[in-house]
Amino acid sequence: MEREFDVVVIGAGPAGEVAAGRLGEAGLAVALVEAELVGGECAYWACMPSKALLRPAELLAEVRRVPGLTAHGPDPKLVLERRDEVIHELDDASQLPWLESRHVTLVRGHGRLDGERRVTVGADVLLARKAVVLATGSGAAMPPIPGLAEAQPWSNREATTAASVPESLVILGGGVVGVELAQAWSSLGSRVTLVEGMPRLLAREEPFASEQVESALREAGVDVRTGGKAVSVARGGAVTVELEDGSVATGVELLVAVGRKPLTAGIGLESIGLEPGKPVEVGDDLRSAAHDWLYAIGDVNGRSLLTHMGKYQARLAADAILGKQVELRSDGALSPRVIFSDPQVAAVGYTLAGAEEAGLRVRAVDVGTSANAGGSFVGRDAPGTSRIVVDESRRVIVGATFSGAEVAESLHAATIAVIAEVPLETLWHAVPAFPTRSELWLRLLETYGL
Amino acid sequence: MEREFDVVVIGAGPAGEVAAGRLGEAGLAVALVEAELVGGECAYWACMPSKALLRPAELLAEVRRVPGLTAHGPDPKLVLERRDEVIHELDDASQLPWLESRHVTLVRGHGRLDGERRVTVGADVLLARKAVVLATGSGAAMPPIPGLAEAQPWSNREATTAASVPESLVILGGGVVGVELAQAWSSLGSRVTLVEGMPRLLAREEPFASEQVESALREAGVDVRTGGKAVSVARGGAVTVELEDGSVATGVELLVAVGRKPLTAGIGLESIGLEPGKPVEVGDDLRSAAHDWLYAIGDVNGRSLLTHMGKYQARLAADAILGKQVELRSDGALSPRVIFSDPQVAAVGYTLAGAEEAGLRVRAVDVGTSANAGGSFVGRDAPGTSRIVVDESRRVIVGATFSGAEVAESLHAATIAVIAEVPLETLWHAVPAFPTRSELWLRLLETYGL
Repeated sequence: MEREFDVVVIGAGPAGEVAAGRLGEAGLAVALVEAELVGGECAYWACMPSKALLRPAELLAEVRRVPGLTAHGPDPKLVLERRDEVIHELDDASQLPWLESRHVTLVRGHGRLDGERRVTVGADVLLARKAVVLATGSGAAMPPIPGLAEAQPWSNREATTAASVPESLVILGGGVVGVELAQAWSSLGSRVTLVEGMPRLLAREEPFASEQVESALREAGVDVRTGGKAVSVARGGAVTVELEDGSVATGVELLVAVGRKPLTAGIGLESIGLEPGKPVEVGDDLRSAAHDWLYAIGDVNGRSLLTHMGKYQARLAADAILGKQVELRSDGALSPRVIFSDPQVAAVGYTLAGAEEAGLRVRAVDVGTSANAGGSFVGRDAPGTSRIVVDESRRVIVGATFSGAEVAESLHAATIAVIAEVPLETLWHAVPAFPTRSELWLRLLETYGL
Repeated sequence: MEREFDVVVIGAGPAGEVAAGRLGEAGLAVALVEAELVGGECAYWACMPSKALLRPAELLAEVRRVPGLTAHGPDPKLVLERRDEVIHELDDASQLPWLESRHVTLVRGHGRLDGERRVTVGADVLLARKAVVLATGSGAAMPPIPGLAEAQPWSNREATTAASVPESLVILGGGVVGVELAQAWSSLGSRVTLVEGMPRLLAREEPFASEQVESALREAGVDVRTGGKAVSVARGGAVTVELEDGSVATGVELLVAVGRKPLTAGIGLESIGLEPGKPVEVGDDLRSAAHDWLYAIGDVNGRSLLTHMGKYQARLAADAILGKQVELRSDGALSPRVIFSDPQVAAVGYTLAGAEEAGLRVRAVDVGTSANAGGSFVGRDAPGTSRIVVDESRRVIVGATFSGAEVAESLHAATIAVIAEVPLETLWHAVPAFPTRSELWLRLLETYGL
């Protein structure tokens, strides 16, 4: 069957859903093609289940900092039940009314480009009058380590949806996924070994964040091994991972979390002269330079592998298709980002090192995240540092990193300051309420010299 | 003894301390006069102890929203011990090193103006070469209700430092103090009756905030009585309060929280031709129009009775004394403010009604505070509303109110947006991280029409 739409979106993860919904709301005829679950990786196998696994232990730590309460847990059975509830038992029915109310036609099956503005889904053909939007996301990268493939490793999918707590777990990769899942499973009773080839965890973030997270993981009982890559893997019942220095790590399960690869193979890119398996390159308007009817949003374009950035790109791409002038103003490594470890790490814009590498004339100032009156009540005495990176020539903040207990909601103030390029002299008049930990802003500006 | 300083600051509460410290840091010779405790009302008898009393129950409520933990409490004994720790057992020794390191001379005693740039403290005379800063704060107002004075009512002081939980408590006044202390003592086991003459609690905030707080207090067992003033009070063992409609409220203790009066009697205002007992009027540079050497900061000037605003005014006044051009850019009813009830209420700038009264052409949009992915993990299913008030002619946010569980730290983003007058079109590019509740910003802007 051949059907015609204004726009065909391939992939119903967060980015694809938002693009389709926004276009549908604007009155366009939209087809949204999905081979698995509407909601995508994030909703079922990444952001959402990992937070469900992490939150109880994070909250328990806060309870222990506040005299007057006694608490026990986390109870793995209840936590896993709540995780199952959060991922809707891998059923996407609850996502559908949102699409239906926006008149988006959901097409279940594997979408594949078949030349210009033409998408096949099995025997069906979808023609796009205006645009095709690629939003097929990313999958876990598997490094070519001898024995790894044969050892049946977990990706983020198995690691976020496991039906029980593995007695022990080796994790390859100390980035966001590795750190969050080390924390989560350790808090539920697993004996976790976390292996990172780089000298430190969370290598893209400020060094103080890496140190605090590593130290907290060690205190929680995680065996953290940095600075040595895995060289071989063998499974004989349990999994044994050999590291560069000859030491070994063993676990009942092995999670590989060393990066992501865009899911661009098998979607017909070759039919329009693009190379499968690579990110689909787009400009700041999310449009392919090669085809003016082709957009790529979310992980598939390789710019910023974060759900909220995919959704942001989706809004812009939809607006571009609707004829508006659009431009990404938040992108790549400078995107706002939160790591839900304990301490949490929330950052936007440049790290100090990143700004210096970019050639900016910057100065960083640091204060303790809980070193203020608000810290007597929330995150009391917990480790944490707040840093702003100031562009000295323009006196605006070009980067900020907060580490500490429950700092995730504190990021947005920095995101606004960075994106709007609010001058320090104006921020000085934005008074943080007493006694909240937001007074760290006051301390930062005072320390800077205001 | 007669001594000369550059600046004499009367009152070592938050505002006085900050002014003295900032001037001392800048190298000026500063005397800071305090009759009671360095740190002031806020540190010992207001903000700090009330938050110590409130935090455990707030946290317990969050634990009950997160499956996987069991918790008990709050244990009044432990909570009161922590409260005593927070107020340093009413000992200000820990405040002194901060002043000493800034070379501020602390003068203990009752400071009193005695003509131009002259302050007496008992037999001592302090001469001010440059300026005198009044920062004597405010005290609880006592309304002229028959029998009230004789009934030995509590002010905020007794209510925040009580050595045990009163079996029952009547509170007159449903503003911030009344609401927070109703919540606090109720959570520790007291039977509380909260009486407010106005038709609703927190009358200056958005109506939805009043409704949600009132409803939560009722659910917690507080007997809330709005719309009827107290007409008489009698104590015979317990206290009996008679209301306008003839009904009565009884309690072992009675807290009066109907407002504050500036502490300007007995400080020698008459010696410079100003009227004692009234707020000391100042301009946007915190300077008296009557005397160019006289500044008044904090509650004493009546502009904004909030600790953080007093400290803000202190920074500006100090800078003005140091010769800088300064101007209040955040003031009065538009100041950022947080009420630590559960749900919390955090607001900055105008309410919708306030903006309309001010003649602005505005539109408000509302979303549920936890109606986003982040709300699956923090403040799950808790009541709460987030509202922005948009100035339609300039397309900037002139007011924001957040109600809900733990929204206090979410306010600063709005404060920056309001103070910096960030256009909605720019805020649209400030992407909230997924899955945090800060995505309420995305929903607000989408609902507005971006």
